[in-house]
Amino acid sequence: MEVLDVLNLGEIAQYFSKMAMFPVFDCAYYIVSILYLKYEPGAVEVSRKSPVASWLCAMLYCFGSYILADIMLGVSPIDYFHNNSHILLASAVWYLIFFCPLNLFYKCVAFLPVKLVLVALKEVVRTRKIAAGVHHAYHAYHHGWLIMVITGYVKGSGVALMSNFEQLLRGVWKPETNEVLNMSFPTKASLYGAILFTLQEAHLLPVSKSTLICLFTLFMATTKVFMTARHSHGSPFALIESWLCHLLFGSPLGIEDDHHHSAPAAASAPLSPTKTKEELSEVTRKRKSKKAE
Amino acid sequence: MEVLDVLNLGEIAQYFSKMAMFPVFDCAYYIVSILYLKYEPGAVEVSRKSPVASWLCAMLYCFGSYILADIMLGVSPIDYFHNNSHILLASAVWYLIFFCPLNLFYKCVAFLPVKLVLVALKEVVRTRKIAAGVHHAYHAYHHGWLIMVITGYVKGSGVALMSNFEQLLRGVWKPETNEVLNMSFPTKASLYGAILFTLQEAHLLPVSKSTLICLFTLFMATTKVFMTARHSHGSPFALIESWLCHLLFGSPLGIEDDHHHSAPAAASAPLSPTKTKEELSEVTRKRKSKKAE
Amino acid sequence: MEVLDVLNLGEIAQYFSKMAMFPVFDCAYYIVSILYLKYEPGAVEVSRKSPVASWLCAMLYCFGSYILADIMLGVSPIDYFHNNSHILLASAVWYLIFFCPLNLFYKCVAFLPVKLVLVALKEVVRTRKIAAGVHHAYHAYHHGWLIMVITGYVKGSGVALMSNFEQLLRGVWKPETNEVLNMSFPTKASLYGAILFTLQEAHLLPVSKSTLICLFTLFMATTKVFMTARHSHGSPFALIESWLCHLLFGSPLGIEDDHHHSAPAAASAPLSPTKTKEELSEVTRKRKSKKAE
Repeated sequence: MEVLDVLNLGEIAQYFSKMAMFPVFDCAYYIVSILYLKYEPGAVEVSRKSPVASWLCAMLYCFGSYILADIMLGVSPIDYFHNNSHILLASAVWYLIFFCPLNLFYKCVAFLPVKLVLVALKEVVRTRKIAAGVHHAYHAYHHGWLIMVITGYVKGSGVALMSNFEQLLRGVWKPETNEVLNMSFPTKASLYGAILFTLQEAHLLPVSKSTLICLFTLFMATTKVFMTARHSHGSPFALIESWLCHLLFGSPLGIEDDHHHSAPAAASAPLSPTKTKEELSEVTRKRKSKKAE
Repeated sequence: MEVLDVLNLGEIAQYFSKMAMFPVFDCAYYIVSILYLKYEPGAVEVSRKSPVASWLCAMLYCFGSYILADIMLGVSPIDYFHNNSHILLASAVWYLIFFCPLNLFYKCVAFLPVKLVLVALKEVVRTRKIAAGVHHAYHAYHHGWLIMVITGYVKGSGVALMSNFEQLLRGVWKPETNEVLNMSFPTKASLYGAILFTLQEAHLLPVSKSTLICLFTLFMATTKVFMTARHSHGSPFALIESWLCHLLFGSPLGIEDDHHHSAPAAASAPLSPTKTKEELSEVTRKRKSKKAE
Repeated sequence: MEVLDVLNLGEIAQYFSKMAMFPVFDCAYYIVSILYLKYEPGAVEVSRKSPVASWLCAMLYCFGSYILADIMLGVSPIDYFHNNSHILLASAVWYLIFFCPLNLFYKCVAFLPVKLVLVALKEVVRTRKIAAGVHHAYHAYHHGWLIMVITGYVKGSGVALMSNFEQLLRGVWKPETNEVLNMSFPTKASLYGAILFTLQEAHLLPVSKSTLICLFTLFMATTKVFMTARHSHGSPFALIESWLCHLLFGSPLGIEDDHHHSAPAAASAPLSPTKTKEELSEVTRKRKSKKAE
């Protein structure tokens, strides 16, 4: 913690946790989200065939977290859509990514160095959303710890948690899996983040909220940037999860690792860029989406 | 506009837009809606096997627009069901269409001249619903233009927008398509209508609401009657949409036409009653549902 | 009614209908519900692979009725989750049933005599839920008879009504059937119970609510215990339903019987324990889930 003291973390964290997200950070969030939509197989065809469906999917990618959190708290699911400027910005990003002449905008933002910056900015927004979600639920249910965790979780995970239904909108149906059954890193991190922020709200964590926001953002941004740069789908939680699952649920050790493409394996061979099946399939997907343009 | 002046449109429109919908117009709406339910393959079998599921589907067909709009605005989805007289009327229509001895009621209302009148009356209700939906949303969100459009849209489209889930209730699952991906004429017209009524509510359209209701009803009723009479699934918007999509989204010209069974093609050969694939399949469906009775 | 008078039913019913459900009855409800979850094919594998998904399914099994009723009345679907003690109890039951060393807890509660007692206790809770649901809806909509029936119905049926989506959470998708299309005995009884309690609330039934609770509980508990003991899936309503459907909907007599594994058939041969296809498949399921442990 000495390094943090030297950096005068308190004030920086305070400033950081009050910083406005609109428009720069939000814009990065929209760009990265809709970029992932374009990577989805068939998304480009849908945008040509039915722009309305494609736009709706883009909105789900950008505002899915608000929609889900509103549903969870019994508010109108389209409540957030009265923020006309946010909707306009997200729509502009959607238009540029899918229909920009020469695919220029897409090529710019998908260029790795640019993408890494955008990914980092997106994680800043994600952390703030988790904290806001937990805080919002805390105001509605003072002792509803689980409600706080759930609200923070859906605010952080966003469209991932309703990916089955988002895919259905594009005519794709994959019932054999879902984001709860096979959590990706951001979903998992959102869950742990929501638990941390709930503990903080319950004064069980000896740390101020702004510090927690700052630290969690740092963790998320660095991890996600690192993973994006290495096209990795491993999880930094794999080792600890594997042990915890073994302890609590009697899962055989190592199964979690195989399943999540293995931080331990990556740790033992961090320099060999052998591609796992999932990474290869992502590469294929990207090629396909490039061809389709 | 001279013709309209001669007809003293202002007063007529005023009177027309205040006219009570219950029971005559609503009844026509229920009859046409449940008629379409009976055309669905397998619907008659479901009504024999599980009357509760069939009745529930009929209620979705009749009140789907209210249910969806209530969900969108965060109200109880079964809120409309406290209108006992409406529910009773719709239930009676359902019973008569599915279980009337000798299938007498069905034969009467499916008789083309009668059906055309009912279809026209149904469009009157649809337009009023769109206007009411937009107005309702306007009261909740004064500057939420998108929320107004969405509410008007779901109020006009009704069950079509949740057809995937309505089918699921009958044990049918067709994930490869949905109403947003392949909009039918009423859904599309509802969307455009919702945009028009939102523009009117925003005072961007130099026309009174009653006049707009009157004109839009006229357009919907004549178009729908014409389409029902000719068993056509073409869209009067096809040409303009094709150009707009070409301009905005770079879609190749003519694709929209193929897809929507082509107003231009119909315009070039309006007198040749060649049946498209979709029309043929509707004929087959009707035959099947007749056999099943 | 003489016997009931002798038993001084009025006071007993009064006492019975005020009795606290937490923790004993609720605990029995959770145990039986999660037991049925463990019987589901694949549920044990899911609990090993993704404890979060398994826990979520268990919560749906325990609190599905509250979630559905809250959705129906436009309240936050996770509203009930602020009852931390209930959630903790249900989570403990889930943990014990799925992860107890040597599968000890499961073996205890699945032991038939114990299970029969728990099943009876569960039906006590179910009846109370139906009555509470109807009463709750009555307060929101004084003349919304249908809303009362629907709320009571979903409160009684619980997770069964959303089984398609609960299965989806576990990666299973069976669109060809659902609980409305093929109602099981508890769902059907919940519907009839909800109608009875609505009639009572409308003062159309000359009986006090506590007496109705008492009688309906007795009916449900004895029927369900009898059915569980005999591994039967027949319905005591089959005969009367068959006649009613014949009268109202022209269904051929006997079809309902075949479908519901036939109370009449059971009545004509109540002592021959021949297993129907459905019963056999349940036995197979149980064997499988035992193997999987």
